[in-house]
Amino acid sequence: MMGKRIHNFNAGPAALPLPVLEEIQEEFVDYKGSGMSITEVSHRSKWFDDVINEAEERARRLLKLGDDFKVLFIQGGASLQFCMIPMNLALVGKPVSYINTGTWSTKAIKEASIQGKDVQVLASSEEKDFSYIPTDFQVIEEASYLHFTSNNTIKGTQWMEFPQVKDVPLISDMSSDFLSRPFDVGPFGLIYAGAQKNIGPSGTAMVIIRQDMAERTPEDLPTMLKYTTFIEKNSMFNTPSCFTIYVINLVLKWIEETIGGLEEMARINQEKAGILYDSIDQSDFYRGTAAKESRSLMNVTFRLPSEDLESKFVAEAAKEGLGGLKGHRSVGGCRASIYNATGIDSIKTLLEFMTEFENKER
Amino acid sequence: MMGKRIHNFNAGPAALPLPVLEEIQEEFVDYKGSGMSITEVSHRSKWFDDVINEAEERARRLLKLGDDFKVLFIQGGASLQFCMIPMNLALVGKPVSYINTGTWSTKAIKEASIQGKDVQVLASSEEKDFSYIPTDFQVIEEASYLHFTSNNTIKGTQWMEFPQVKDVPLISDMSSDFLSRPFDVGPFGLIYAGAQKNIGPSGTAMVIIRQDMAERTPEDLPTMLKYTTFIEKNSMFNTPSCFTIYVINLVLKWIEETIGGLEEMARINQEKAGILYDSIDQSDFYRGTAAKESRSLMNVTFRLPSEDLESKFVAEAAKEGLGGLKGHRSVGGCRASIYNATGIDSIKTLLEFMTEFENKER
Repeated sequence: MMGKRIHNFNAGPAALPLPVLEEIQEEFVDYKGSGMSITEVSHRSKWFDDVINEAEERARRLLKLGDDFKVLFIQGGASLQFCMIPMNLALVGKPVSYINTGTWSTKAIKEASIQGKDVQVLASSEEKDFSYIPTDFQVIEEASYLHFTSNNTIKGTQWMEFPQVKDVPLISDMSSDFLSRPFDVGPFGLIYAGAQKNIGPSGTAMVIIRQDMAERTPEDLPTMLKYTTFIEKNSMFNTPSCFTIYVINLVLKWIEETIGGLEEMARINQEKAGILYDSIDQSDFYRGTAAKESRSLMNVTFRLPSEDLESKFVAEAAKEGLGGLKGHRSVGGCRASIYNATGIDSIKTLLEFMTEFENKER
Repeated sequence: MMGKRIHNFNAGPAALPLPVLEEIQEEFVDYKGSGMSITEVSHRSKWFDDVINEAEERARRLLKLGDDFKVLFIQGGASLQFCMIPMNLALVGKPVSYINTGTWSTKAIKEASIQGKDVQVLASSEEKDFSYIPTDFQVIEEASYLHFTSNNTIKGTQWMEFPQVKDVPLISDMSSDFLSRPFDVGPFGLIYAGAQKNIGPSGTAMVIIRQDMAERTPEDLPTMLKYTTFIEKNSMFNTPSCFTIYVINLVLKWIEETIGGLEEMARINQEKAGILYDSIDQSDFYRGTAAKESRSLMNVTFRLPSEDLESKFVAEAAKEGLGGLKGHRSVGGCRASIYNATGIDSIKTLLEFMTEFENKER
C-alpha cells in the first residue's frame, strides 16, 4: 500500500510526519476497534471526546499553559480569526494596535478597519518589501491588544524575540511557526494558528485564549463568532472539524513522544534552516531575500540570477522528487518551506540538488 | 488491514460508504502518484483543483443546477450559515421569514433575531413538540426570504413537499437530507448542508447560492462572512477544509456512479425507511414519535414502553454491532439515522434485532 514519497516543501497544506500518516491509514476503516472510521464516529462519543481532550492536554503540556488559558478549535482558518479578534477583543474607546510584517498582517489589519475599529499600525516593513522584522516601535500601553504575525510565510521572515509589552496583551498569528519552538505564553492574550502548516491538515484553527480576554466578548455577537461560545461548549457548540482535530492530536503526540518536545523541535528546526542559509550565504548564485537577522526558520526564500533559471530550478527539482519550491504567486522566486515535519533528509537532498544545479547552470 | 465494521446509525458524523473509505485508505500516503497524502498537497495545486472542481461538477449534475447557481464550500457548518444568511441576504426594510420545525430552525431564527432583523415566524409545530411539519401558513411575499429546515434530525420529521412560494426565495437547511432525493432547485435562493450527515465528514458546509442573491451582500461585512468572497475566489479566499472536500467528491461520485443518481438514491431511501416504519406500525411495543405524514426518511425516531427498556435496547443493540441508536440527548428515546450510506443490510439487521428484542421483553 506504500507508494513513493516526495520531499515536500509546500507552504501549506504541507508535509505531515510519515508515521502519523501511516497510523491514520492503518486504522482508517476501523478506528480503535469501534467498527467505524474516525470520520464516522459521533463528535459526542467517547472516542472523539478522548481525541479532542488529548489534543488539548498535549497543547497544554507542550506550551506549559496554566488553567487561565483555554484551548479552542475554530473552523475558518486564521482568516476568520482576523475578523473575530477585533469583534471580540477591541475595548470601547481604546485603539487596537498592529505591526505590519507582510501579507497576513495586512489582511488582519484590514479586517479590524472594516469593523470601524481605531486601528494603530505601530510599525511596518512595507517600505523594504517586508524583508525584515521592525524593532523600532512604541507600544501603546492603553491599546486593546498588540497584534503581530510571528512568522511570515510569503516573505520568509520571523520574529526571533517577541515585542516587549507591559500591560497590553499580545495577540499573535502563529499559523506558520506554531509549536516549532518553545516560548513564554505569559504576555499573550490570544494565540492562533491555522492547522495546515505545522500541526495538521487544513480545516481548523487552534486558538489559545486567556480567560480574562473572553470577558470582553460583546453579548450581542452572532453565536458562532463569540469566543465564549467555544469556551463554554469545549469547541463543540456544533460539530467541529473532527478529522483535522484527530490528526492534530497525532501530530502533537509525535512532537511530544517521537521528537521529545519543543526544545528539541526547535533545535532540529535551527539545524535544518542553518544548513540551507549557510549554503545560500556561501553562494553568489542563490540570494536570500530576507534580512539576515529576520530570517525565518520555517520558510527559506531565495532568488536565482534570473526568472528563467528559477522556473528551471523548480521544474527540475520537481522531477527529482523535490516538491513545492516555487515562491508564493504574489512574490515569485523560490521558497523551501521546512516546517516541523520536513525531515533533515529532505534538507540534505535539497542541498545536494541546489549544489548540482548551481554547478550546472552558473 | 480491514477490521470489523458495525452497522452505523449515528445521526452525524455518520456512516460513509465503505468503498469510499477503502479508496481513501488505499491512497492515503501517496495520492494519485503525487508522493504526498491528500492532506499534504497544496490547495493551489492541480491535484486539489481537480478535487474541488469535480465535487462542484458532480453537485451540479446531481441537482441539475443552472449557471445561475454557485456551489461553495464554507467552514463552520450549518451553524455559521444561521448567522451568514441574515447578515448577507436580509433586505433593508423587509422582514425575514422562517418556519419553525425544531431545534435547528429555532437556532436559525435566534441568529436572525440577534442581528436585529425583522423576523417573522410563519408557522411552528412547537405546541406538539415539533412532531409534525406545518402545512397551514401564509407566505409573506415581500419577505427577504423564507427559511425552512428540510429534515429535522432530532424530531424525525421531513418536508415531503416544500413550501409553495411565488417570488420570495426559499432558503433551506438541508444538512440531514441533502442529496437523499431529487428536487427542483428553481424556487431556491440558497441551499446549505453541513457535510457530516449525507455527503462526507465534518469540516465544511456545502452552500448553493443563486447568483442574484449574492448581490444583496453588504459591502462592509467582514471578508470571511461574505458570500461574494467565496464566489469570487471559488471557495479559496483562504485554505478550505481540503480533506472534507476530497471525501465529499468521493461520496458524490459514489452517488452518481455506484448508486446511479438521486432518483435511485431516493428509491433506496424510501425502501429503507419503509421497512422500519412498517415494522413500528405493526408493533404495539415500538411507537413512532413523528406524525405519519411528516415522517423522516433519514431519522426514524421511536420510543419503547419505558425508559429502562430504551436503555437496554440501545445497550444490547450496541453489543450486537448496531451503533448510534440512542435518541438525541435533548429528547431521549431511540433513533435510527439511516442516511444515504446506511445500507439495506444494516436496516434488515436492525429489523431482526428489534423483532427479537420485542419477543424477549414484551
